[in-house]
Amino acid sequence: MNHEDSTRAPLFSTIDAMNKGLGFIDDSLNASDIRQVNWNLLREDLSLPSAVLYQDKLTHNLLWMKQFISAYAVKLAPHGKTTMAPRLFQMQLDAGAWGITLANAQQTFVAYRHGVRRVLMANQLIGKENMAIIGRLLADPTFEYYCLVDSPDQIDQLGAFYAGIGQRLHVLLELGVNGGRSGVRNNEQLHSVLTALSRWNQSIALAGIEIYEGILHDEPSIRAFLQHAVVVTRKLAADNLFQRTPILLSGAGSAWYDVVAEVFSAAGFGDTVEIVLRPGCYLTHDVGAYREAQNRILEHNPIARRMNSGLVPALHVWAYVQSIPEPDKAIIGMGKRDAAFDSGLPVPALHFRPGSITPASAPTHWSVTKMMDQHAYLQIAVGDDLRVGDMIAFDICHPCLTFDKWRVLPILDGQYQVVDIAQTFF
Amino acid sequence: MNHEDSTRAPLFSTIDAMNKGLGFIDDSLNASDIRQVNWNLLREDLSLPSAVLYQDKLTHNLLWMKQFISAYAVKLAPHGKTTMAPRLFQMQLDAGAWGITLANAQQTFVAYRHGVRRVLMANQLIGKENMAIIGRLLADPTFEYYCLVDSPDQIDQLGAFYAGIGQRLHVLLELGVNGGRSGVRNNEQLHSVLTALSRWNQSIALAGIEIYEGILHDEPSIRAFLQHAVVVTRKLAADNLFQRTPILLSGAGSAWYDVVAEVFSAAGFGDTVEIVLRPGCYLTHDVGAYREAQNRILEHNPIARRMNSGLVPALHVWAYVQSIPEPDKAIIGMGKRDAAFDSGLPVPALHFRPGSITPASAPTHWSVTKMMDQHAYLQIAVGDDLRVGDMIAFDICHPCLTFDKWRVLPILDGQYQVVDIAQTFF
Repeated sequence: MNHEDSTRAPLFSTIDAMNKGLGFIDDSLNASDIRQVNWNLLREDLSLPSAVLYQDKLTHNLLWMKQFISAYAVKLAPHGKTTMAPRLFQMQLDAGAWGITLANAQQTFVAYRHGVRRVLMANQLIGKENMAIIGRLLADPTFEYYCLVDSPDQIDQLGAFYAGIGQRLHVLLELGVNGGRSGVRNNEQLHSVLTALSRWNQSIALAGIEIYEGILHDEPSIRAFLQHAVVVTRKLAADNLFQRTPILLSGAGSAWYDVVAEVFSAAGFGDTVEIVLRPGCYLTHDVGAYREAQNRILEHNPIARRMNSGLVPALHVWAYVQSIPEPDKAIIGMGKRDAAFDSGLPVPALHFRPGSITPASAPTHWSVTKMMDQHAYLQIAVGDDLRVGDMIAFDICHPCLTFDKWRVLPILDGQYQVVDIAQTFF
Repeated sequence: MNHEDSTRAPLFSTIDAMNKGLGFIDDSLNASDIRQVNWNLLREDLSLPSAVLYQDKLTHNLLWMKQFISAYAVKLAPHGKTTMAPRLFQMQLDAGAWGITLANAQQTFVAYRHGVRRVLMANQLIGKENMAIIGRLLADPTFEYYCLVDSPDQIDQLGAFYAGIGQRLHVLLELGVNGGRSGVRNNEQLHSVLTALSRWNQSIALAGIEIYEGILHDEPSIRAFLQHAVVVTRKLAADNLFQRTPILLSGAGSAWYDVVAEVFSAAGFGDTVEIVLRPGCYLTHDVGAYREAQNRILEHNPIARRMNSGLVPALHVWAYVQSIPEPDKAIIGMGKRDAAFDSGLPVPALHFRPGSITPASAPTHWSVTKMMDQHAYLQIAVGDDLRVGDMIAFDICHPCLTFDKWRVLPILDGQYQVVDIAQTFF
C-alpha cells in the first residue's frame, strides 16, 4: 500500500493564469510572490467578477472566535469544508485551533497535503477508495484522524478494510434525531452499533461522541439533543467503551456554537472529556443566516455580550455593471456561478466608479432580485447615479456555497491592494 | 502590451491528486495517460462522489445536434460556459461546430489557451482587465472574436480602450425585451447605440445582431422577438451599417433552438447572413428543464420528428449510501457542492451494490427530498433492498450548475471503465 510522505511539499502553490477573478499572470505565479504583481482592485487590475477576502476582517473574526472559545475552555476544529482553502486553515491553526473538521476523504487528503495533522471528519467514511485514501494518510504516525459511525453495516465495512491493511481507525459515534440526517436515533440502534464495534476491536477504536445540532431549528430541541449527547457520553464512559483519553465530545455548526459550548461545558466532565466545536462560517461570516444567528448570540450569550463586537463579513464578490437597459434595472456581471443563492441573494455593499478615490456604501434601496448563471438583476431607483462600467461589491449569504465557486480568492488590505491569496481545493 | 503566443501548449494537461471524484494518483497524472491507470467505477476505483460522463451518450448527442443543425443549414457555436471543459469544446468543434460561445473574458482566455480560435462572447465586455485579456488574444491574427454591445457608455469605454492599443473589436448589437436581461429595448436606445458606434469607427466594427430568446417563456413572444431581430437585421443591412460579410445573426439557448433555427432560416437571408445558434446543454442533456424542452421539440419540430431519437442524459453524479437511519430514508454522500439543485433535485437513475455484476435501474419511487452542502436525503420505501455502502447514480437537472462543481469529470465507456477525462476551468 502506498503511503503519504509527511515531508512532501504541498502541490499547487502556483496560481494559474486561467483562474477567474485575477489580474494578468504570464502562465503562472507562485502564491508567495503575490505582492510582487502589485494588483489593486480599485485600479481595475482584477478581471471581475472576483471574490475577495479582507485581511483585517479575517483577523478580527479569528480573534473573536479565539476569545469566545477560550472563555469556555473548549477546543475549536473549524469546519474546513466551508472554505477548502489551506491558506485559511493555516490562519485558523495559527489562531489556536485544535484541528480542522472536514466532510470527506478527498477534503481530508487536501488538508493533509497542506500540513494539517489533526482532522475530525464529521461524516461517515464509506467506499473502498475513500477508505484507501485515509489508510494512506494513517501510515503517517503523526496524523490524527476521526470519522463518524452510525450503523453496523458501515462498521463492518470499515473493520474489514482496516483489519485487512493492519491499521486501527479512530471513530466517533454519531447521535441523530428522527427527521434529521445521519446518526443513531434510539437505544436499539445504539446497541447494534456498539455490538458491531465490539467485533472489530483490533481495527476500530471508539474515541468519542459526535452530534450535529444544526439539523434542528429551535433552541429547546437543541438543548435537549445536547443533553442527550451528554447522557450517552456519561453512560458509555461508565461502561469503559471509549478507547481515547480524554474522550472526545463534539458538536456545533456555525449557528448554535454558543449553546453547544454552554451545555457541554456545564456538564462538568473536567479533564476526562475534550469538547470540540466545529463552526466553519465564522471566518468570513455573511449577511444571511449566520448574521441572524450571530445577532441571537450577541443578545443572549453572556460571553459574547461582554466582547463588545461581533463577527464581520470578510468576503465580497465584486462585479461590473454591464447594462442598465431600463431606468430602474441594472444587469450585473455576477451570477449563480459566482455567489451563493440558496439562502438569500447577494446584497450590494459598496459602489465604486473607476477613476474615483474610494468606494461608497451602496444605497440601501438597491437589491438583487434575480440571478441567472452569469448575471444578476439589480433593482435601483430611477435617477440613481449608477453607470455601465461601475463596480459593486456584494455581501453574500452562505459562505460555503460561495467559496466552492472560486479556485483563488485574493486577500486585500485596507487600500484594496492584493497582499495574499487563498486557493481552494474542491 | 503582452500578447498570447498561439503556438503555446495548453497549460494544465495534468490531473492533480487533490481533485475530488478520482482514483489514486501519485501526485499528478497526464490527462492523456488516463487509460493507463485503469480505473473502473464499478470496482470502486473512484473516490465518490464523482461526476462522470458517458462516452457513447456524448457521441450520440454530438451527432444528433450536428444532424439537426445541418438540416437547417445554420451554424453552431455551442455555449461553452455550460461545461467550461476544453476537452468537450474539442469534441464539439470536431463535430463541426463553427466556434464556441462563452460568457466572459476569462472563459474566452481559457478556450483560446486550449486551441479555440473563434469565440462568440454572448455578453457585454466590461472593465479594464477584461478588455486587456481580449486585447492580448486579438494580437493573434488567427483569433476571431465577437462580443455584445447595448449602451453608449459601454461602447465609449470599448472604443477608447481599443483605440488606445490600436486594435479593432468586432461586436454584435444585442436586442432585448422589457422585463428581460441586457439588450436595447426600443428605437431610441438603438439610435443612441448606433450613434455611439459611429464615433468609434476605427476601433469598433459592427458585425451583426444577437438576441437571447431564453428570457422569454412562451412561444408566441419568442417568435415575435425573433421576427423583430430579423427586421432590425434587414434594416441595418439596408443602411450598410454592418462591417462583416456575411452579417452575423445569432440566437438560441438550449430550450428554443428549434424555433430560432426555423424563424431565422425562414427569413430568407441567403448567403448575406450567417445564422449562429448557441445551445450549450445539448451535449450532456438533463432530466429537468431541458428534457421538457426536448419533448416539445421532438413533438413539434419537423426535422426532430424525423430523427427517430432525442438527446440523452450523458452525465451522472455517483455517490454512496452513507446511512439509513430511518427505514424509509437514506442519507447520500452527495450535496449542493456536487450537483445542481436550482431547477430540480437530482433523480436516482441506477443502483449498484459493490461486488455485483452490473447496475440496475433505480426504483422509480426513490426520490431526493432535500439537499445540504454535502448530503442528500433519499426517500425510499420500508423494506427496499438498499444498504449502506451501495452506490447510486443520479441524473441531474441543469448541467451548467453541475459542471462548475467539478474540476475533472472521468469519461466512461460502456463497461464503466475510465477512458478519457474532461477538466473544467472556472
